[in-house]
Amino acid sequence: MKKAVLIPDSFKGTISSKRICEIIGRKIYKYFPDCEVVSIPVADGGEGSVDCFLEAVNGDKVTAQVQDPFGDEMTAYYAILPDSDSAVIEMAVCAGLPLAEGRENPAVTSTYGVGQLIIDAAKRGCRKIIMCLGGSATNDLGCGAAAAAGIKFFDRDGNEFIPVGGTLKDIAKVDLSGKNKILDGVEFVTMCDIDNPLYGETGAAYIFAPQKGADEKCVKMLDEGLRSAAKVINEAVETEIDSIAGGGAAGGMGAGMQAFFGSSLQMGIETILDTVDFDSMIDGANVIFTGEGRFDSQSLRGKVVIGVSKRAKEKGVPVVVIAGDYDKKLDAAYENGVSAVFSTNRVAKDFSVIKGESVKNLELAADNILRLISIFDK
Amino acid sequence: MKKAVLIPDSFKGTISSKRICEIIGRKIYKYFPDCEVVSIPVADGGEGSVDCFLEAVNGDKVTAQVQDPFGDEMTAYYAILPDSDSAVIEMAVCAGLPLAEGRENPAVTSTYGVGQLIIDAAKRGCRKIIMCLGGSATNDLGCGAAAAAGIKFFDRDGNEFIPVGGTLKDIAKVDLSGKNKILDGVEFVTMCDIDNPLYGETGAAYIFAPQKGADEKCVKMLDEGLRSAAKVINEAVETEIDSIAGGGAAGGMGAGMQAFFGSSLQMGIETILDTVDFDSMIDGANVIFTGEGRFDSQSLRGKVVIGVSKRAKEKGVPVVVIAGDYDKKLDAAYENGVSAVFSTNRVAKDFSVIKGESVKNLELAADNILRLISIFDK
Repeated sequence: MKKAVLIPDSFKGTISSKRICEIIGRKIYKYFPDCEVVSIPVADGGEGSVDCFLEAVNGDKVTAQVQDPFGDEMTAYYAILPDSDSAVIEMAVCAGLPLAEGRENPAVTSTYGVGQLIIDAAKRGCRKIIMCLGGSATNDLGCGAAAAAGIKFFDRDGNEFIPVGGTLKDIAKVDLSGKNKILDGVEFVTMCDIDNPLYGETGAAYIFAPQKGADEKCVKMLDEGLRSAAKVINEAVETEIDSIAGGGAAGGMGAGMQAFFGSSLQMGIETILDTVDFDSMIDGANVIFTGEGRFDSQSLRGKVVIGVSKRAKEKGVPVVVIAGDYDKKLDAAYENGVSAVFSTNRVAKDFSVIKGESVKNLELAADNILRLISIFDK
Repeated sequence: MKKAVLIPDSFKGTISSKRICEIIGRKIYKYFPDCEVVSIPVADGGEGSVDCFLEAVNGDKVTAQVQDPFGDEMTAYYAILPDSDSAVIEMAVCAGLPLAEGRENPAVTSTYGVGQLIIDAAKRGCRKIIMCLGGSATNDLGCGAAAAAGIKFFDRDGNEFIPVGGTLKDIAKVDLSGKNKILDGVEFVTMCDIDNPLYGETGAAYIFAPQKGADEKCVKMLDEGLRSAAKVINEAVETEIDSIAGGGAAGGMGAGMQAFFGSSLQMGIETILDTVDFDSMIDGANVIFTGEGRFDSQSLRGKVVIGVSKRAKEKGVPVVVIAGDYDKKLDAAYENGVSAVFSTNRVAKDFSVIKGESVKNLELAADNILRLISIFDK
């Protein structure tokens, strides 16, 4: 084995993608000390995305003073990739749930700081901005970010205001004319791995607001706000954001990124693979290791493993999946380029019992996989 | 991959060794259609041992009319191996628990039929008899078998009788003079994978009689019978059978085989490996697949996997273990020649939940292991 590429999804709630790369990488060096190991930790657009991009392609981490979800000043960061033309912004760094700890309230929190980061990146010359959604404390439809970019919102009385979750319903008019000219021609790509629409039963408020601190009454109010605001915004931007798949991501910021910044929404893994130039990265690789906590039919819907294996298949590079659990139906995975699948489970015990051994079990599984490879790869 | 040897233990209670060989063998042919696959199913001396030997070395299955555990006539079978000099007898075929179904009672059942099989084999010219213990319905210390071979037992009143579990305590004298001369010079090897002594807290009665239908009172009586009989037998055969490791196997037949037939007791796997000439069988093999239901520190104590891997190590053949569960401490296994270990568990669920999927999960694990091998074995 001369070259191996590691690009695992995290095992949700147990092991990060970066840690998985470290573990598998160490096992590869143990049996193949001269092997070139390329690690591409991925974060699905959620928390840690910027660090993952930096790990994979060695960009610059830059900082900026922006507002936190409650309007207080804070230092946030984002990445500028080596081509100097692209920025990767993780909305969670200044609008994430951990920043609201103890005072979670999606009715009052704002994505204003995210808009400030966008402007900062554009001012530094970035012509492409990759927005990572996920882990948000907000439900403001991205109106805060839009306001930071110069878009103006007015209530029925003609008063300008910056909408938050609880005041979305007050939006009577949106004025795009003040949008910062520095954004003209900037390309936006938004990473988003869910397909929930903006509002309704499966929308941002009903599905995600409870975990951001909203009670039943608040959820209903937020949902009505999103619905009402969408109507006004649709008119202003001459598009239709009500039913975009992923529009409901990050408190409606999925829809907001499209409406206010003309962003496309795409699966995180595709953005990552494009951005790191995956096809070149796997040139000459003998094997790719990927994986996720649970590898099943859901995995076929644009998630990391299948995103990776489809591209690997085109280049003829074998893909080994190391998963927590895996489904017994694997034919579709094989057809999509997966070569072999292994579970980290080594005892027939419930997850609640073995959860604490996840790292150890991954180490054991990886070690034995590499041991097997070393028998046959002379 | 040009040649693979399959020699798995059964996954106790879920999949037989033979079935495991079939499953792994089929997967090998799927990816390596030209591979020579040598299957050696093993049965630890218990039920199915004769069939396993026949499968591995193609001997003859012969039948004989003997007594069942209750003295009724039945047709039993055993194997004569290709060298025509060795017989493999499985005591369970005529003294096994399934034959007592519905009327289990270790106080009255007899191994008489087993002795008849021994005589039959000797009459057919066999000079070596391999006795497989396990799965017995009896607790007669092998006295029934001894009686069938001409050894006489007498009570305190000088009356001859054939002892069973409930009458062991009546043995006052053992007369070896009538032992069938046809057994002179016949070598006996008894396969036995437990090390329980004849009697006492860890002996035949206390540990195994309950599963043969004995209640608490019966267990106590059987234990006293074994203890009392041992005293008389020791004197008659001028040996000491009280504390032989494995003497308590098969209702004391372990001790009885040594006392009445001069048999050695050894781990089943060593007998199998010797008998099938394992060292020659693995000549030129690229890999050996073995495994067991639970691979742990117990496995190091002379069980199939380690027995196999120790010999494989000497010949430099890699050993891949496919287990149900495996222990996280594998260093001792690796030192003993194991190359890599895989679990069939693919979801973090309790055994009670996934038991029904054992075959499917083994198929999946084997398939993916072969898939991985096929990537690297060009």
